[in-house]
Amino acid sequence: MTILRRHDTGSIAHLVMNTPQKLNALSDEMLAALQMQIDSLHKESTIKVVILSGVGKGFCAGHDIKQMNAARGEEDGGKAYYRDLFARCTAVMMGLQSLPQVVIAQVHGIATAAGCQLVASCDLAVAAEDTKFGVNGVNIGLFCSTPMVALSRNIPRKQAFELLTTGDFISASRAADLGLINRAVPVEELESEALKLATTIASKLRTAVKIGKRAFYQQLQMPLDQAYAYTSEVIVENLLDQDTVEGMEAFAEKRPPNWQVD
Amino acid sequence: MTILRRHDTGSIAHLVMNTPQKLNALSDEMLAALQMQIDSLHKESTIKVVILSGVGKGFCAGHDIKQMNAARGEEDGGKAYYRDLFARCTAVMMGLQSLPQVVIAQVHGIATAAGCQLVASCDLAVAAEDTKFGVNGVNIGLFCSTPMVALSRNIPRKQAFELLTTGDFISASRAADLGLINRAVPVEELESEALKLATTIASKLRTAVKIGKRAFYQQLQMPLDQAYAYTSEVIVENLLDQDTVEGMEAFAEKRPPNWQVD
Amino acid sequence: MTILRRHDTGSIAHLVMNTPQKLNALSDEMLAALQMQIDSLHKESTIKVVILSGVGKGFCAGHDIKQMNAARGEEDGGKAYYRDLFARCTAVMMGLQSLPQVVIAQVHGIATAAGCQLVASCDLAVAAEDTKFGVNGVNIGLFCSTPMVALSRNIPRKQAFELLTTGDFISASRAADLGLINRAVPVEELESEALKLATTIASKLRTAVKIGKRAFYQQLQMPLDQAYAYTSEVIVENLLDQDTVEGMEAFAEKRPPNWQVD
Repeated sequence: MTILRRHDTGSIAHLVMNTPQKLNALSDEMLAALQMQIDSLHKESTIKVVILSGVGKGFCAGHDIKQMNAARGEEDGGKAYYRDLFARCTAVMMGLQSLPQVVIAQVHGIATAAGCQLVASCDLAVAAEDTKFGVNGVNIGLFCSTPMVALSRNIPRKQAFELLTTGDFISASRAADLGLINRAVPVEELESEALKLATTIASKLRTAVKIGKRAFYQQLQMPLDQAYAYTSEVIVENLLDQDTVEGMEAFAEKRPPNWQVD
Repeated sequence: MTILRRHDTGSIAHLVMNTPQKLNALSDEMLAALQMQIDSLHKESTIKVVILSGVGKGFCAGHDIKQMNAARGEEDGGKAYYRDLFARCTAVMMGLQSLPQVVIAQVHGIATAAGCQLVASCDLAVAAEDTKFGVNGVNIGLFCSTPMVALSRNIPRKQAFELLTTGDFISASRAADLGLINRAVPVEELESEALKLATTIASKLRTAVKIGKRAFYQQLQMPLDQAYAYTSEVIVENLLDQDTVEGMEAFAEKRPPNWQVD
Repeated sequence: MTILRRHDTGSIAHLVMNTPQKLNALSDEMLAALQMQIDSLHKESTIKVVILSGVGKGFCAGHDIKQMNAARGEEDGGKAYYRDLFARCTAVMMGLQSLPQVVIAQVHGIATAAGCQLVASCDLAVAAEDTKFGVNGVNIGLFCSTPMVALSRNIPRKQAFELLTTGDFISASRAADLGLINRAVPVEELESEALKLATTIASKLRTAVKIGKRAFYQQLQMPLDQAYAYTSEVIVENLLDQDTVEGMEAFAEKRPPNWQVD
């Protein structure tokens, strides 16, 4: 039994976290498995969309506290291990954004601490209505400092600060209102809703989406004039793609495009 | 018949895009006409507010795809033309923000791709309830890379990413909830609502609004301490304006101000 | 009678602005009193949360216009005074964010101009349902350039721009929807709601919240990779705290933590 299952349907890859007894915690093993898939997906030109979900009662409960406690026994009290752990966790979170594919979190049950960070780090997220979201490390004296990087880039700051300092949970409906997820749906529609979103995106020209995703996160960190200078180059590159030439001609001729690559 | 009509009522300039047969697409001609008005408005001290709207079924459907396709025939496949096109488009979008006047988009029908960027680039926006907003270039293989610069500075990132990669449309009501526009109103109230907003702003001291608008966009791009250092200088400059002196004295004396310049 | 009253209940400090005849305006005296408390709180390790409120009809009506007008009589028309005033005001606003304690604004009646900035500068805010929020300096010819720094880091830009240029007020319910405050409650529940929030946060490990608050504002101003590098160091530091060690062990053993410091 693998801790991170994968099955593909057409150009959609399903990554399923499969340690339900640990609420799919981001253990060393789970992080390694996620990183391995990220490394692989970088090279897989047939996959256009990734759906990330979890088996069992919840999506992901954050870091594996028992594993982290075990590192206390080392001579440095675990310092070297923790540094390495957060470097690996950061690589996974930023890796999701650097993928050429669009990554959709399919969330249910619970998404807390680094599990909430995982949702915030995906490009898109759909959640079951009964999902609880939180960054509640503060409850055990460990402020969610790394999760807040992703969280505070998804939702307004006073709302992020409240979650971080109270350890309170919010509903999926509230998470949608704040911008943490794209929408909440009844649990029985969760899988079909995520698949519908993935299928829509998978129907688009791969090159265009790939170019666009990379540019999206880059330009967000630039001042306005640089953002325009950069994206102007990006869209000119996009315009010279042969399939885009066809897409634009098809549009002008009011017929469906006949794409070669996809 | 001009493609960009203008009529002024008092200190309010109305710019009306007038190529309904093209859904007011941002053709070379429309961009030139907009740039000409921007250049002129920079020097017009009697105008305080600009309302930008469109004739026909929709506000603006983005770039002129047929015109863009025609450039394919050039030796470089259109590359030089496209570079120039996006430089001109960026100049218009950033030009709206650099104007001393407040610019209000009065939106109806459709605002898509660069038309949605135009809405996002105005300081304020009011839309008819039945307006559809989208950045759907991805549908023809051309990711809305330049429109997303303005869009992603108006609405949360997961919601922006979804619009960009699905090509889906959202309603005016949803656009208001996300922050893309200020409010949605019944179509029969659109013109009066935009005018009411313009009239309110036109009743303020021109110098104060001009100073404030410039500072608004500048400080948004600064770290907190720099933003405060900069705006502190701005507000001190504002305080030394003779009409502001009068405004503050009138306030203390509970009487209306007697402004000289406006 | 002091203009800024203080009383502590356990680890919660209550700061109460007490110049109701001036709607608790940020006069020279009030700014000095706030700064003195900020300087003191920096060194008070027993206090974990600060609740800031005001006596009388409203929370805070912004700067003291009469006092500002009085400075006109100086040789430079008040320029040196105004520069100094905004330096002192900025020190208070940024000081609230630099405090090791969490600061909650308990808002009622009115929060306008620099009073609205004060709300936006607190970490969290709870308001009575009938509170009016605005940045209406533009009405007297003085654009709220410094208040907008805090405001535009709390709410979306088109909504901020509208408030700044129209001088309109919004309700507490709207302020909550936009992100300016955490929630609106009936006026009779205001005090208990703020206290409940403060008590929840005061129950957390002081060191964790202190570390987290500082990191929260720092990382918001960094690009993603720097934010992760920085917060990874922060969370490793947090992990080596002896009370955090205990908190994590207690969690794994499903028992309440036995913290030494708090």
